[in-house]
Amino acid sequence: MKSVDLNCDLGESFGAYKIGQDEEVLNFVTSANVACGFHAGDHNVMAKTVKMAAAKGVKIGAHPGFPDLLGFGRRLIETNPEDIYHFVVYQISALKGFCDIEGVRMQHVKPHGALFNAAATDQTVAFAIAKAVYDVDPNLVLFGLSRSELTKAGVNVGLTVANEVFADRTYQANGTLTPRAHEHALIHDVRLAIEQVLMMIKTGTVKAVDGTIVPIEADTICVHGDSEKALEFIQELRRTLKAEGILASSIL
Amino acid sequence: MKSVDLNCDLGESFGAYKIGQDEEVLNFVTSANVACGFHAGDHNVMAKTVKMAAAKGVKIGAHPGFPDLLGFGRRLIETNPEDIYHFVVYQISALKGFCDIEGVRMQHVKPHGALFNAAATDQTVAFAIAKAVYDVDPNLVLFGLSRSELTKAGVNVGLTVANEVFADRTYQANGTLTPRAHEHALIHDVRLAIEQVLMMIKTGTVKAVDGTIVPIEADTICVHGDSEKALEFIQELRRTLKAEGILASSIL
Amino acid sequence: MKSVDLNCDLGESFGAYKIGQDEEVLNFVTSANVACGFHAGDHNVMAKTVKMAAAKGVKIGAHPGFPDLLGFGRRLIETNPEDIYHFVVYQISALKGFCDIEGVRMQHVKPHGALFNAAATDQTVAFAIAKAVYDVDPNLVLFGLSRSELTKAGVNVGLTVANEVFADRTYQANGTLTPRAHEHALIHDVRLAIEQVLMMIKTGTVKAVDGTIVPIEADTICVHGDSEKALEFIQELRRTLKAEGILASSIL
Amino acid sequence: MKSVDLNCDLGESFGAYKIGQDEEVLNFVTSANVACGFHAGDHNVMAKTVKMAAAKGVKIGAHPGFPDLLGFGRRLIETNPEDIYHFVVYQISALKGFCDIEGVRMQHVKPHGALFNAAATDQTVAFAIAKAVYDVDPNLVLFGLSRSELTKAGVNVGLTVANEVFADRTYQANGTLTPRAHEHALIHDVRLAIEQVLMMIKTGTVKAVDGTIVPIEADTICVHGDSEKALEFIQELRRTLKAEGILASSIL
Repeated sequence: MKSVDLNCDLGESFGAYKIGQDEEVLNFVTSANVACGFHAGDHNVMAKTVKMAAAKGVKIGAHPGFPDLLGFGRRLIETNPEDIYHFVVYQISALKGFCDIEGVRMQHVKPHGALFNAAATDQTVAFAIAKAVYDVDPNLVLFGLSRSELTKAGVNVGLTVANEVFADRTYQANGTLTPRAHEHALIHDVRLAIEQVLMMIKTGTVKAVDGTIVPIEADTICVHGDSEKALEFIQELRRTLKAEGILASSIL
Repeated sequence: MKSVDLNCDLGESFGAYKIGQDEEVLNFVTSANVACGFHAGDHNVMAKTVKMAAAKGVKIGAHPGFPDLLGFGRRLIETNPEDIYHFVVYQISALKGFCDIEGVRMQHVKPHGALFNAAATDQTVAFAIAKAVYDVDPNLVLFGLSRSELTKAGVNVGLTVANEVFADRTYQANGTLTPRAHEHALIHDVRLAIEQVLMMIKTGTVKAVDGTIVPIEADTICVHGDSEKALEFIQELRRTLKAEGILASSIL
Repeated sequence: MKSVDLNCDLGESFGAYKIGQDEEVLNFVTSANVACGFHAGDHNVMAKTVKMAAAKGVKIGAHPGFPDLLGFGRRLIETNPEDIYHFVVYQISALKGFCDIEGVRMQHVKPHGALFNAAATDQTVAFAIAKAVYDVDPNLVLFGLSRSELTKAGVNVGLTVANEVFADRTYQANGTLTPRAHEHALIHDVRLAIEQVLMMIKTGTVKAVDGTIVPIEADTICVHGDSEKALEFIQELRRTLKAEGILASSIL
Repeated sequence: MKSVDLNCDLGESFGAYKIGQDEEVLNFVTSANVACGFHAGDHNVMAKTVKMAAAKGVKIGAHPGFPDLLGFGRRLIETNPEDIYHFVVYQISALKGFCDIEGVRMQHVKPHGALFNAAATDQTVAFAIAKAVYDVDPNLVLFGLSRSELTKAGVNVGLTVANEVFADRTYQANGTLTPRAHEHALIHDVRLAIEQVLMMIKTGTVKAVDGTIVPIEADTICVHGDSEKALEFIQELRRTLKAEGILASSIL
C-alpha cells in the first residue's frame, strides 16, 4: 500500500500575534513543522504546539529559519555556513527540549522560507544544515525539496531524507518549482492540485508547465493551514487519498 | 580536604559586540555560566564558548536570563511563571545542543541578573526555574544565592543545588546581599574580599555589615572576568586557596 | 454643543503578523494612536497607517511603549526615567517623520499598555514621558488616564492634556479603573457601556462599582477595533452620541 | 584653500555593549555618522552621542542600516525598495528628534555597511535611500561612495551629495573599492594611506591597484575610531592636512 506524509508549518504565532489555525490543522496532518523562535514562534508557543501535536499523535519536526521575525524568515540574509550551522543547532535543540519534556521523539527538521529555498540550490547552505541536523541527532529525518541540494546533502551526511512536493505549485521541466513571480506558479483549482498530488504519488512523475513529464519523489506533501480554504483542501485531499487507497502516514 | 567551585559568567558577547576576556578567564575558573542568547550571547558565541570551555576542562552551565538584550537581563520584566518556565527550558535546551555536539555533559544552570535576583526571594519564580531545570535534566545542578528561595526550590523539586557566595559583596544580618545602592555593598579591597571567602569556606559563616556572624554555605564562588583587575583577583584567589589547602574544583 | 474624541490603538501589525481591522476602524474614530515599532508596529505598518489615517481625516498620535514585542508592551520593565525619556523621544520622532511626509501634523501622544499604567500612578515615569513629549513638540496633546499622574505631569510641563475614559471598564471610588483581575472590571453590556459614557460626558461624573459618584473628565474615549463586535460598538456609540447631540471630534 | 570633511561612524554601542572611543574621536573628526538603533546604537546611546557631538561642534548625520543587530548591518538582507525607503525614513526621523532637542541641525545621512554597499551599485536601493532622505529633509547632504549609484541618485532627486573616499582601502581601475577579500584591498602603511588621501584631494585622482590613474572626488574621508591605532591615524592625518594647507571642515 502506498503512503504519503502530510506536513504543515505550525507554531508560527508570536506573543500577542496569532497566525494559523493550529488546533484544527493538527487533526488532518501527519507531521508538524514547528517554528523555533527565530523567524516565528516563541518559547510559549513552542511548548503549546508540541503539547497539542503530541496529544493528537502528530509527529513533530523543527522548522528553523533565518533570525528575522520582521521578514518572517522569507528574506535571504547573506551569511556564512558556520552561522547557519550554529543557528540550526540552536533552534533544533531548543525545540528538542520541549519534545523531551512531552516524552515524544522529534521526527524531522525542515528549514523554513528563504533558508529552505537557499538550501534547495546552494550546496554550501545545504551541507551546513544537513550537518547541523546530523550532529544534533543522526536519527532525525531531513525534509527538503524533492531532488534538491538539500536532500542530496542529507543523504551525503548519512541522514534519512523525505522528498517534499507541493500540491498547489507548478513545476518546471528541470524539476524545480515555478517561481512565484511567474503567471502559472500557483494551482488555484483544488481538483487540479489533488490530481497533481495523485500523479506524483502513483507514478513518481509530475507534468511540468511546458508539458514535460519529469520524475519526482513524493515522500511528504506540504499543506497549509492559514485559512478556512486551506483546511478544506487538506480534508478533501485526505478523502481522496483514502478513496485511492493511499495511506496518510508520518515518515517514522 | 575542603573544596570550592569558582564560577564565572561567560559567552556574553553578541555579534560584533565583545564583552569579557573569556579565553583568559577559562584558565582560572572551574565552572562557566554560558549566556544563551536571550539577554546576551548568540548561537555563534555559544558554540565557541562551549568549545573553549570543553577544551580547557571547565564545566559548563546554562545561564538563562530575561529576553532583554538591551537591558542585558538586568531589568525585571513582569511576567508569569509559565513564561519563565518555558524560556528557561528553551535556553537550557539550546545550550545543551552545543554541549552534546562537543561531547561534554552540561553540569549546571545559574539564572542571570534580574532573574537570579527575583529567584532569590520570589517562591513562584524560584519554583518555575527549578522545575524547568529538573524537567530538562534532573542531573543538572542548580546554582543559586546561598540559602535563597531558589536553592530551596531546587532541593524541593529534587535537584542537587550549589550555594553561591560572593567575594566582593557584603552581606546583611539576614544572610542576603547588601543591595548595590547601599554604601558598603561592595568590597573593593582584594585582601578583605579573599578573607571573606576564606571565612565562608572554613567556618560556614560570614560577618554581616552590622558585625553579626551569619551562617552561609559556600559551594561555589562567583567571580568576574570583565577586566584586567578581575583576572588578577581570580589568580590571587586561586593562589590563596592553594596555600590554604582548599581545592578549586567544579561541583560534579 | 458638547463634544468628545474617540481614540483607538492602530498600526499594531508587525511584518507578516496582522492585528486589528485598521481600515474599518478609521471610518469611525477621530484620533488614531499609532504604534511606533517597540511593542508593536514596524516602519512599513507605520507608513501605511499614517497614510490611511491622513486620507480619512483621522488625527494621528504616537503610541510609544516598552521595547517588548514579545509582551506587546503589556509587561512592566523596570528601568530608569532617562531610558523612558529617550525611548519616548525616539518613538515619537520616528512616527513624526511619516506624518511630516504625509503633510499632516501629529496631534497627540498616548503611552501604551504597561507604560500607560505606570504613568498613571508613578510620578517619575509620568514626568519622563511628559517631558519627552514637550521636548519633541510643545504643541502635542498628551493623552492620559483621567485625573492621573500622567495628565498632571502633562499640565505641569506645559502641555495640553486630554483626559481619557473607558466605556467598557468600571471605576473605583477613587476614580481609578477597577483592575482587570476583579470580577466587575469589565462592562460587557453594550447599553451599560454607552450609558456610562453618556453620563461621563454630560455630568462629568461616573458611578463607581461601590455606587459612589466620582468626578471624571471625559475628553477622549478609548475604543477598540480588534473584533467585529468592537466595530459594532463604535458604530452604536457614534449613533447614540449623534442622537444625544454630542459631537464626535478630535482634540485639535 | 582646499578643504575636506572627516567622517566617522559613532554611537555604535548598544545597552551594556560598548564599541568605539566616541568621546576621543569627536575631538578629531568634523562629521559624525550616528547609528540609529537598527544595526547598532540604541535610544540612550543616540541621545548621548548627539549631545557629545553637539558640544564639540561636530556635525551630525544619521547612519541608517539594515534591521540586523546580530550582523551589525554588514549582511545584505533581500528586501524591497519600499521597505528600505520606510526604514530609512524611520531611522533618520528618530535621530532627528534628538538633534532637534539639542538644538542642532542634522547635516547628513550616510547608509551603513551592507546598505551602503548595495546603494553603491544598485540603482533601486540607491533611489529608495535618496528619496527617503529628500522626503525627510531636502537640505540633508547624502554621503555616498565617490561616483557611485548612491551619489548619482542623490543628485537626481535634488540633494547635495558628498563623495566619500577611503584612506586605507585601495581602488580598482573602474573607480570602485578593491573588495576586502582581495590581497591588496587594505593599505596598512599609514604614510601610504595619507599619501593616497593627499593625492585624491589635490589632484582629484587616485592610483588604482593596477597603476591606472582614475578620477575621484574627495569631499569627505571615512576614518575609523575603534582602536588606539585608528585614533593615532586620524591625528596624523589632521597634522598632515594642516601642513599641506588643507582645511578639515564639515560639509555644511
